[in-house]
Amino acid sequence: MAKPDTGVRIRPISPADYLTVISVIDAWWGGRRMADMLPRLFFEHFTDTSFAAERDGGLAGFLVGFRSQSRPGEAYIHFVGVHPGERGHGLGRQLYERFFEAARAGGCDRVRAVTSPVNRGSVAFHRRMGFGIEPGEAGPDGIAVAAGYDGEGQDRVRFLKYLADGGS
Amino acid sequence: MAKPDTGVRIRPISPADYLTVISVIDAWWGGRRMADMLPRLFFEHFTDTSFAAERDGGLAGFLVGFRSQSRPGEAYIHFVGVHPGERGHGLGRQLYERFFEAARAGGCDRVRAVTSPVNRGSVAFHRRMGFGIEPGEAGPDGIAVAAGYDGEGQDRVRFLKYLADGGS
Repeated sequence: MAKPDTGVRIRPISPADYLTVISVIDAWWGGRRMADMLPRLFFEHFTDTSFAAERDGGLAGFLVGFRSQSRPGEAYIHFVGVHPGERGHGLGRQLYERFFEAARAGGCDRVRAVTSPVNRGSVAFHRRMGFGIEPGEAGPDGIAVAAGYDGEGQDRVRFLKYLADGGS
Repeated sequence: MAKPDTGVRIRPISPADYLTVISVIDAWWGGRRMADMLPRLFFEHFTDTSFAAERDGGLAGFLVGFRSQSRPGEAYIHFVGVHPGERGHGLGRQLYERFFEAARAGGCDRVRAVTSPVNRGSVAFHRRMGFGIEPGEAGPDGIAVAAGYDGEGQDRVRFLKYLADGGS
């Protein structure tokens, strides 16, 4: 497994990061309009479980997550982005591990996330990170999906990982 | 002032409300695409500060809000919708008051919200509800706006209300 990239610094996100992030994410997602899915509120009110990764002062990636307010012990990863030129070197893993650490520090013992079943790279990544897939209908490649989870035709794969004490 | 409408029941929101809400909100907003701004996570993880209003089993309105995770004592109202046929009868006020109550019960002493400066109805509503407007540049009608708050050209009026003990 690749060693963590020591040229990248991960730090808590701040409101000042918001305009930077929304100015790049549509391009990072190959032109899809993503900015509406990431309102500023996460950069204001969830800064202790959301992180920016920087290389030489530029944005290399970010993770937006939170502790569930109404489900004690549960944390949720909402949105993760990695600069196209930074992919494949373990930065996603570093961001997730930083989040797991923050979630544990906040009293959580499990983490959830969802993704689209067509996003096979994301499904494979979550499996490598130790997430299980929640039961559902049989989707592409036999992966269990929650049909219409995010609206009509918007099936989602639901991931769940239990955090071990100390390790990840 | 109008008396609260006793034919409407306000209750905590639940995941089962999500598909109902996103199926109506674009129409409630006159056709604007709003569903992306309201991800399902609020209906899963913030159900103790988010509410649905029902009349005869149908959705009359809803409010999605939360307690700030990283700013103790602060609460935030993200999204409020009222059925076009239910407007002008105090349902928005009822939803806000229910949220203030939940915010106080959760240890908060202040509530924030933002709106677009062109939404004069929303600016007037928040003033009636006791919100002050945070300092900013002079916008339409001399209202202070935070320029580019939600991205380029996306100015916002920022509201802040301190909650009194007991009352609203």
